[in-house]
Amino acid sequence: MNEITMKVKADKLIMQALEEDITSEDITTNAVMRERKAGEVALMCKQDGVIAGLKVFERVFTLLDPHTIAEFYVEDGEFVSRSQILGIVKGDIRVLLSGERTALNYLQRMSGIATYTRKMADLLKGTKTKLLDTRKTTPNMRIFEKYAVRVGGGYNHRYNLSDGILLKDNHIGAAGSVKKAVEMAREYAPFVRKIEVETENMDMVKEAVEAGADIIMLDNMTIEEMKEAVQYIDGRAKTECSGNVTRENVEQLVNIGVDYISSGALTHSAPILDLSLKNLHALV
Amino acid sequence: MNEITMKVKADKLIMQALEEDITSEDITTNAVMRERKAGEVALMCKQDGVIAGLKVFERVFTLLDPHTIAEFYVEDGEFVSRSQILGIVKGDIRVLLSGERTALNYLQRMSGIATYTRKMADLLKGTKTKLLDTRKTTPNMRIFEKYAVRVGGGYNHRYNLSDGILLKDNHIGAAGSVKKAVEMAREYAPFVRKIEVETENMDMVKEAVEAGADIIMLDNMTIEEMKEAVQYIDGRAKTECSGNVTRENVEQLVNIGVDYISSGALTHSAPILDLSLKNLHALV
Amino acid sequence: MNEITMKVKADKLIMQALEEDITSEDITTNAVMRERKAGEVALMCKQDGVIAGLKVFERVFTLLDPHTIAEFYVEDGEFVSRSQILGIVKGDIRVLLSGERTALNYLQRMSGIATYTRKMADLLKGTKTKLLDTRKTTPNMRIFEKYAVRVGGGYNHRYNLSDGILLKDNHIGAAGSVKKAVEMAREYAPFVRKIEVETENMDMVKEAVEAGADIIMLDNMTIEEMKEAVQYIDGRAKTECSGNVTRENVEQLVNIGVDYISSGALTHSAPILDLSLKNLHALV
Amino acid sequence: MNEITMKVKADKLIMQALEEDITSEDITTNAVMRERKAGEVALMCKQDGVIAGLKVFERVFTLLDPHTIAEFYVEDGEFVSRSQILGIVKGDIRVLLSGERTALNYLQRMSGIATYTRKMADLLKGTKTKLLDTRKTTPNMRIFEKYAVRVGGGYNHRYNLSDGILLKDNHIGAAGSVKKAVEMAREYAPFVRKIEVETENMDMVKEAVEAGADIIMLDNMTIEEMKEAVQYIDGRAKTECSGNVTRENVEQLVNIGVDYISSGALTHSAPILDLSLKNLHALV
Amino acid sequence: MNEITMKVKADKLIMQALEEDITSEDITTNAVMRERKAGEVALMCKQDGVIAGLKVFERVFTLLDPHTIAEFYVEDGEFVSRSQILGIVKGDIRVLLSGERTALNYLQRMSGIATYTRKMADLLKGTKTKLLDTRKTTPNMRIFEKYAVRVGGGYNHRYNLSDGILLKDNHIGAAGSVKKAVEMAREYAPFVRKIEVETENMDMVKEAVEAGADIIMLDNMTIEEMKEAVQYIDGRAKTECSGNVTRENVEQLVNIGVDYISSGALTHSAPILDLSLKNLHALV
Amino acid sequence: MNEITMKVKADKLIMQALEEDITSEDITTNAVMRERKAGEVALMCKQDGVIAGLKVFERVFTLLDPHTIAEFYVEDGEFVSRSQILGIVKGDIRVLLSGERTALNYLQRMSGIATYTRKMADLLKGTKTKLLDTRKTTPNMRIFEKYAVRVGGGYNHRYNLSDGILLKDNHIGAAGSVKKAVEMAREYAPFVRKIEVETENMDMVKEAVEAGADIIMLDNMTIEEMKEAVQYIDGRAKTECSGNVTRENVEQLVNIGVDYISSGALTHSAPILDLSLKNLHALV
Repeated sequence: MNEITMKVKADKLIMQALEEDITSEDITTNAVMRERKAGEVALMCKQDGVIAGLKVFERVFTLLDPHTIAEFYVEDGEFVSRSQILGIVKGDIRVLLSGERTALNYLQRMSGIATYTRKMADLLKGTKTKLLDTRKTTPNMRIFEKYAVRVGGGYNHRYNLSDGILLKDNHIGAAGSVKKAVEMAREYAPFVRKIEVETENMDMVKEAVEAGADIIMLDNMTIEEMKEAVQYIDGRAKTECSGNVTRENVEQLVNIGVDYISSGALTHSAPILDLSLKNLHALV
Repeated sequence: MNEITMKVKADKLIMQALEEDITSEDITTNAVMRERKAGEVALMCKQDGVIAGLKVFERVFTLLDPHTIAEFYVEDGEFVSRSQILGIVKGDIRVLLSGERTALNYLQRMSGIATYTRKMADLLKGTKTKLLDTRKTTPNMRIFEKYAVRVGGGYNHRYNLSDGILLKDNHIGAAGSVKKAVEMAREYAPFVRKIEVETENMDMVKEAVEAGADIIMLDNMTIEEMKEAVQYIDGRAKTECSGNVTRENVEQLVNIGVDYISSGALTHSAPILDLSLKNLHALV
Repeated sequence: MNEITMKVKADKLIMQALEEDITSEDITTNAVMRERKAGEVALMCKQDGVIAGLKVFERVFTLLDPHTIAEFYVEDGEFVSRSQILGIVKGDIRVLLSGERTALNYLQRMSGIATYTRKMADLLKGTKTKLLDTRKTTPNMRIFEKYAVRVGGGYNHRYNLSDGILLKDNHIGAAGSVKKAVEMAREYAPFVRKIEVETENMDMVKEAVEAGADIIMLDNMTIEEMKEAVQYIDGRAKTECSGNVTRENVEQLVNIGVDYISSGALTHSAPILDLSLKNLHALV
Repeated sequence: MNEITMKVKADKLIMQALEEDITSEDITTNAVMRERKAGEVALMCKQDGVIAGLKVFERVFTLLDPHTIAEFYVEDGEFVSRSQILGIVKGDIRVLLSGERTALNYLQRMSGIATYTRKMADLLKGTKTKLLDTRKTTPNMRIFEKYAVRVGGGYNHRYNLSDGILLKDNHIGAAGSVKKAVEMAREYAPFVRKIEVETENMDMVKEAVEAGADIIMLDNMTIEEMKEAVQYIDGRAKTECSGNVTRENVEQLVNIGVDYISSGALTHSAPILDLSLKNLHALV
Repeated sequence: MNEITMKVKADKLIMQALEEDITSEDITTNAVMRERKAGEVALMCKQDGVIAGLKVFERVFTLLDPHTIAEFYVEDGEFVSRSQILGIVKGDIRVLLSGERTALNYLQRMSGIATYTRKMADLLKGTKTKLLDTRKTTPNMRIFEKYAVRVGGGYNHRYNLSDGILLKDNHIGAAGSVKKAVEMAREYAPFVRKIEVETENMDMVKEAVEAGADIIMLDNMTIEEMKEAVQYIDGRAKTECSGNVTRENVEQLVNIGVDYISSGALTHSAPILDLSLKNLHALV
Repeated sequence: MNEITMKVKADKLIMQALEEDITSEDITTNAVMRERKAGEVALMCKQDGVIAGLKVFERVFTLLDPHTIAEFYVEDGEFVSRSQILGIVKGDIRVLLSGERTALNYLQRMSGIATYTRKMADLLKGTKTKLLDTRKTTPNMRIFEKYAVRVGGGYNHRYNLSDGILLKDNHIGAAGSVKKAVEMAREYAPFVRKIEVETENMDMVKEAVEAGADIIMLDNMTIEEMKEAVQYIDGRAKTECSGNVTRENVEQLVNIGVDYISSGALTHSAPILDLSLKNLHALV
């Protein structure tokens, strides 16, 4: 994760997460350790998967104490396996104890998403089709979750409502027609935006092509319908297949020939990757 | 979710989630709808499960526009089933469109947790054992996720590091012994706290009982060990079984006789409950 | 300005501006008026121009007191002229006095930008060329200033560094070539982004076309160079002319045939439109 | 700009401006530069003027990365001229690129104000009259703009509604008379405040003198009226001339003999001073 | 307390105080009352004193729930006596219970300050000397505490470091002399500020008068010294007596003839006024 | 005060306190000292007492400038006496001057509480009874005040409404009976909470014991009643005596045999401990 993004966007959220976990103090730790004491702990993997978020994990500790040092033996995006030691964290033992849960909560979730994404992305390997995320992210976690998707080999769809245009049926209804909707969007939105239109059948697909849409989403269509649509569009717009795509059903979409497949499951239903801090000990 | 908690804790997080999704404006909606227009949309369930977070879902819309009105046909905690209409939201169509994703992101995640929790809690029915959550929550989502666990029939463990004492091996090591650690905690912490000790074998269990621990966690023990521990403790402390408990393996823990089973999976690995807004239409 | 954007983005900035002006209290007003007293004041125009920001102006007062009422006789985007009464504000006289300066500071600046933009946009009338703003906005005023540009008849370029790609010489240098830079951007960025390349001579223009850039910026070129570039590009990419464009020199760019002309002056050098509150009086 | 003010007041605003420009990440830079790389860029002046805000400019980069180093060859308040190199910034190239626009937006605007102020202040040289700013600043920019006025040779009027008393006609009306208003202000306000009264004619001037006003503002009077007023007041109060004073008309006010002339134009209508970052290159 | 100040300054602090007291929820109340239930509670005085902060007290409850209604039988500044009912609060019983402590913490402290101030101010009655507060306030309570001083009959010294000039020995030392320090302050500071000089002996007093100080503080002088100083100054500057003034010793300062006596004790050592909520009951 | 708590909770409050005192700048200091200049100042005690908050005092200065250095000759909890030098602060003189008041406001208040607490705690020495604080703290000062109580030899009651259960008459009324209230609390609240019941007479005490309350508060009972209650309870629950306990009346409670005595006076009515910065001088 880029250091600038960390400073500008992530630090505030991470500090807020720490405040969520430390309302007044870590009473257990403070009860038994009144003074700073140097220590070290290992980050251990308890499940095979793809690691993502090491910088975020580290930042939890350095925000608590800038003197904390993390050394990692792997990088974001690498496969890690059960029992593997991924790195160590050195610093005030109280910092290691107080930051542990928050640091792992970020790392486990981000690695879970990267792992899930990698599995799906692998199923698309060798095809022209790329895997996309959606806006179905956990509130106040988008910056972390979209990063994890990229680490896992997926690609990002629009970041939010402000930086991408997606004309759905209600927008089209309000405008009067697909053509009118695309025109209004082109007139209104910053000209650096591509315009995407959500379609549900061949009639809409045709309208979208004529209206000059940059991207056409094929939403909840059957495989046959999608094939027909892709053939009809024939490169005049990018195509995106959407609608309850998961690891279980993505393979049947591989041969349709769409440019993109988007899946909300990447961010809303990936289980975490199990990780833990082990062997905390004092350094003399 | 209590209205006071909403005001004091949730509103700020929800508004922040909206800012995450609307950096400048909803360009698609603004391109085609320049004026306020009354409309209505239905909240539809696409999967069987337990609903949780209706007030949070509603709050997303009323924070955008206090004139928005939500009517629900179910309450948090009820079973809902595929295709069921759970309620409607009425207001400015632009508000309905701009708030949709954030509102669903909260509701789907909270309902996913409630659904997962209910399934595990049901497996404990008829026993004395209660199901607990952990601090393995998504950063900046704890208030919502712990609520969802309760809706699902689970119970809450400590909220964070400040409001509960859990002496782990490192704390005990720092103190010198279980006995010393419990004494130090009792001396230091607000006297309204119960003191919990994490144990990994019978020796530690015995020490914890002698030290007067209020709660003894049996961490990653075998079923046989746990049975022995529960028998030994014999009501002198509450007992909590912990360690990678999921829906798949909880049943084998039922007959141990512990007071509590805690499971991180409730909040870190529950898939969402699929929900959507359907049939948005203008009101004349 | 869309009500949702107001809630999510503008309210916080407006409240912050009020805090900047009221550290403890409005001591003058509080010294002479201890109690709420109904009053009314007129918004008067003191200079010909285009009005922009009426909702923001109103919001300053309603944030101080939701019972304040503003009635406007014009709408954003209309021409207003010296001595014209544009509307009235009714409410607690203390609110009218305490909010006056902040409300006018917003409205005067936004209207100044709209006025300046309108004059430049009018010079492009009848051509295919559209007028664009830039990121040369006043810090923490972008949402207001970009809106004012639209009100004045201009169009928005990217909102910020996150929602548009603009490959400059340093990016191209880092990538190795225009072609490589475009490829890297297409691989990395959300696929809904168009890719713009800044060029300074015909060689770069040719490279950009070959690389498949969506938009080509002609930066600080002579008029002859730009004409040649536009002819060469021939619709294969959108074209943007950039570089110290002001009201004084925009006319000579009219016949080049570029799609867009961008001007930082719109937001960084437009003088305000003079407005004032007049005839404050009590209502019995 | 004093370092303490920077810490306490400016840092938060600067970080907010960076967040305005970086919603998620600088996608262009991140697309082509994945790793930290040392580089250097020069700050070049493109127009003659007075520089102001170098510390703020620097702070934008050091907030993004504390390891960034800025060296300046000039100081705030110096005349700078077209093509002059004012300093260099060294650090991670990505930081230089991502911070460039925000840093320049501050520096250009502050230098524009200093330049405009200097020109007006020079016209008052050799007289007893000092040039004052007003509260007509850009929202959330006051701390920067009032500093720039001082750098340009102007003086600051009150900072905001809380730290200065200015009794206008409505305050006087509410109090009943000038005399009563001054009394009420003296009774109510912290005793370290001077009391200023806004007057529009000789009758009000006389009343103000009798009431013991510390400062008398002569608002929108003719030159003859102001001369008469100054003669009448004769040092019994400080005098301030106010009302649409600009660079164009300030000279005719020089011989009136007022203590202060205030001008909103200093902060609301000064065009920027054109500056840019040039010659960014990697450091081996 | 003025409604505008409440909105702009107090609301944020009050909400923060509520967050301090409600980290997740009011568990006691939520355990026994799951639903909204109308109720009423009386505000009772348990000690004689002066009431101050009723609007702040009320705001705690209306921030939790805007439907809460407070009716007071007294106003800020009135004497109240043991057992007197000062008003009632009506609303959701859960709101009354959850807001009680925070509301009372504000009201008790503010009333304690007003009570203490009134007693000291009464001792100065009939003299020309006014009682002043200082900046010795509780962090993040200044807006409330300075208001309470005024309610108690005291006057406010400068609000903070930004809105008043007080040249102490170190400032004078840095400047070189009292004369030089006053000149530098007059040159630098907004011209609406009065200039105060802290003096410790007659030499400094003389210098301060010559330098044209607006206010001269007589700091930690003996009564005889102060008398001499006041006589010497003879109206050429306002005089302020300072240094460990309390209720116990203020009377001996009465006849010195200074314009102001400032006392840090007003805000840093006043005990609270005991108040409580009584007779909470449901409304049918 | 633990460094982690400082980072997560205190820094934000301290910075806010500095913003309260520095709205724009420290004009006095800035007027006479334009440049950084190294200096040193001594922290002097002006009254006998117990010192508390040295880290907070130091943090005020290091937040303004991380290069500031504080050296203390005492530690929190030590007795200090009139005229004793407690330490020195070295750094930019402007930082020492601008931070002085805020640093002392914290330290004086915290030390005042520690001093008051120590005096009361000493009266309980040799008995089994411990001294407790309450939630009657100054808004936005709780983290500092509860720490000061511990430094003074007191113990902390619950931190806030979220981390402790205290069933008062209204809660009991809502539940129907003490028994029912305790049951509901046990069912609802995190299981790590102890349950406390407030009782006003022997009947309630008996009910509370039967209901299995962990702690029984004896509220506003006579000494005789309390003795009877303690005898009846006989170790089946912890006992807490509450109700207007001050330094003046605590001795008569010593022999009752309760486990805890709680006193709001510790935090709401302790006068400050007088401290000051002396002998500021430049370092060559």
